[in-house]
Amino acid sequence: MADFAQESLDIHKKYGGKIHLGLSVPLETADDLSRAYTPGVAAPCLAIAEDEEKAKTLTWRKNLVAVITDGSAVLGLGNIGAAAGMPVMEGKCALFKKFAGVDAVPICLKTQDEEEIISIVQNLEPSFGGINLEDIAAPRCFAIEKKLKETLGIPVFHDDQHGTAIVTLAALKNALQIVEKNISKVKIVMSGAGAAGISIARLLLADGAKNIILCDSRGAIASDRSDLHISKEEMRKKTNPTDERGSLEKVLRGADVFIGVSAPGLLRAKNIETMNSDAIVFAMANPTPEILPEEAKKGGARIVATGRSDFPNQVNNVLVFPGLFQGIFSSSAPQFTEEMFLAAANALAGLVKNPHEEEILPSVFQKGVAEVIAEAVKGV
Amino acid sequence: MADFAQESLDIHKKYGGKIHLGLSVPLETADDLSRAYTPGVAAPCLAIAEDEEKAKTLTWRKNLVAVITDGSAVLGLGNIGAAAGMPVMEGKCALFKKFAGVDAVPICLKTQDEEEIISIVQNLEPSFGGINLEDIAAPRCFAIEKKLKETLGIPVFHDDQHGTAIVTLAALKNALQIVEKNISKVKIVMSGAGAAGISIARLLLADGAKNIILCDSRGAIASDRSDLHISKEEMRKKTNPTDERGSLEKVLRGADVFIGVSAPGLLRAKNIETMNSDAIVFAMANPTPEILPEEAKKGGARIVATGRSDFPNQVNNVLVFPGLFQGIFSSSAPQFTEEMFLAAANALAGLVKNPHEEEILPSVFQKGVAEVIAEAVKGV
Repeated sequence: MADFAQESLDIHKKYGGKIHLGLSVPLETADDLSRAYTPGVAAPCLAIAEDEEKAKTLTWRKNLVAVITDGSAVLGLGNIGAAAGMPVMEGKCALFKKFAGVDAVPICLKTQDEEEIISIVQNLEPSFGGINLEDIAAPRCFAIEKKLKETLGIPVFHDDQHGTAIVTLAALKNALQIVEKNISKVKIVMSGAGAAGISIARLLLADGAKNIILCDSRGAIASDRSDLHISKEEMRKKTNPTDERGSLEKVLRGADVFIGVSAPGLLRAKNIETMNSDAIVFAMANPTPEILPEEAKKGGARIVATGRSDFPNQVNNVLVFPGLFQGIFSSSAPQFTEEMFLAAANALAGLVKNPHEEEILPSVFQKGVAEVIAEAVKGV
Repeated sequence: MADFAQESLDIHKKYGGKIHLGLSVPLETADDLSRAYTPGVAAPCLAIAEDEEKAKTLTWRKNLVAVITDGSAVLGLGNIGAAAGMPVMEGKCALFKKFAGVDAVPICLKTQDEEEIISIVQNLEPSFGGINLEDIAAPRCFAIEKKLKETLGIPVFHDDQHGTAIVTLAALKNALQIVEKNISKVKIVMSGAGAAGISIARLLLADGAKNIILCDSRGAIASDRSDLHISKEEMRKKTNPTDERGSLEKVLRGADVFIGVSAPGLLRAKNIETMNSDAIVFAMANPTPEILPEEAKKGGARIVATGRSDFPNQVNNVLVFPGLFQGIFSSSAPQFTEEMFLAAANALAGLVKNPHEEEILPSVFQKGVAEVIAEAVKGV
């Protein structure tokens, strides 16, 4: 890990960041300038002034995402602020381009005020074709996403929520197929009730899960909890049907599936031993998982996934978000829907022809992943 | 012109706008991803969190301008709104890249409220290395630029003001050299007291002009005017030393120089006839000048310049703004200054080795213009 840190600093310094502007049109002659700029450019301006929909064919907005953060929940680093979040946002933009040919621009906002962020993004709407909210802390991120979806005429996506949820569901589908269990029958215990955790739970419910127990740092979200923010309280009503109470370790007993999007090193082999047979463990805290694969296996886990590229079964959002935007940009849908997310998860799961313990998701570098996701989104 | 309109629509549709995202770093292997994104990217994030100055070496901000408009004064088209302004802003960004290798991103804001624009740009600061305000109506643009310069830690530039002023001064220097007149002795009559007009007048004063008469659509800005916004009132005190009153046509009598940044077709040959011998006429209204070159020549003008590429002596901001940002990005100066603008004008004028009536500025395509401007800015 130390090596990647230094090598990362080196390449950032060498290239001066990871992205740059590219030119799509020729600019070699006076006539080229007259078409791209004055006087010719008045024509596309007037066409859009007359019919704003034309911005979707005449400008780079047709293929352009804003990756917007307030720097409040950057990777595993926490609230490091807008300026320090830039390397992650640039990286995200680079992934959009690399994996789906989608243009993206990082926007790091100095404010962390919910209302102000909403207002700024509303005012930025004429600059972009879609909005990808990134690394904005929960519960603020829920309200921001909801309000923007209601008020903007361009698609809004919060990758930490929906991207994570889609790739997790896809991985779970293949894992359940391997152990021959049905999502409607399994007991799923989750650690982490922030943006990712709540969104994963919602999508699993939408796909038929009946028994999810969501835990935060204080244990199971159950009826004995009087400290719940509205976003967790809402989830309490939809999950934990038998109202199990107590610590993560306690409610994990008898679980078929563990899904962690929380903090490093929460679990040990002995906790996994208390799970049901053929246990599925997704320990996705980054960069250090809730339990290391070796330790989970020692506890009897049959299938283990993490967020890391140096173990098998990397649950990586990059399998999802580039294709989702590629899909919606080439469809006429105004907004992302849960149906699109379910279709994307199914399509992604289907890309693994013969799922086995060490391959429940395609590789990030497998060709055509974004295109398959895009087709699924368009087909909804 | 009709051809360029259709051809412009065609290329905008064909390419889907004029710019796109480019990747600066390799993203071909899992290790590449580990350096550009997780886990390696945590290192540059933490470096910037510790010392925000590092954003200037580790991110694309080191070479990145935001081209920001509210769509209120786009080219000669007026208040066509943010979305319709995008083709111009994209064009501007393309010119930054083409002529100086500077990255630029178009930001079109839905709001036209002065305070809101200021607040949004302040919150966007962590996303960019510099701000280029573009096509924002006067007098709002003055207050926005002033406030942003006072509060931002990155350079702020309003091209409609300062870019136009610098290239106009450069052109005027060479024109005056040809007719062997001194800027401190000539009578300069200007038409247009918006962003460009006021900024040109200010820079000419800073370079030694003593006798400028500024006109707006109601005539000379003189002591008989009770209708002046504060920005014009300020200029009244610094110009028109003999307090000439009345129409543009009236005060133009005996002028050595006419500079128009106003409206098409205001002047005729007979007006030029009333000017001093060796008259210099810069008719820069776009796309249709205050007077066409042929008509101005008929009236006795010796040197004529316009904003158009299809006549000699095109006064084009693209000669200036790319190099200015290239220069400030490679200097340690925190903000643009009037000294930099004067140095840039001198450097630009000096690029024409033997100025004559049909060549008072270098061609837009002359190699090395941006570099010379950049050196001048760095040398201040």
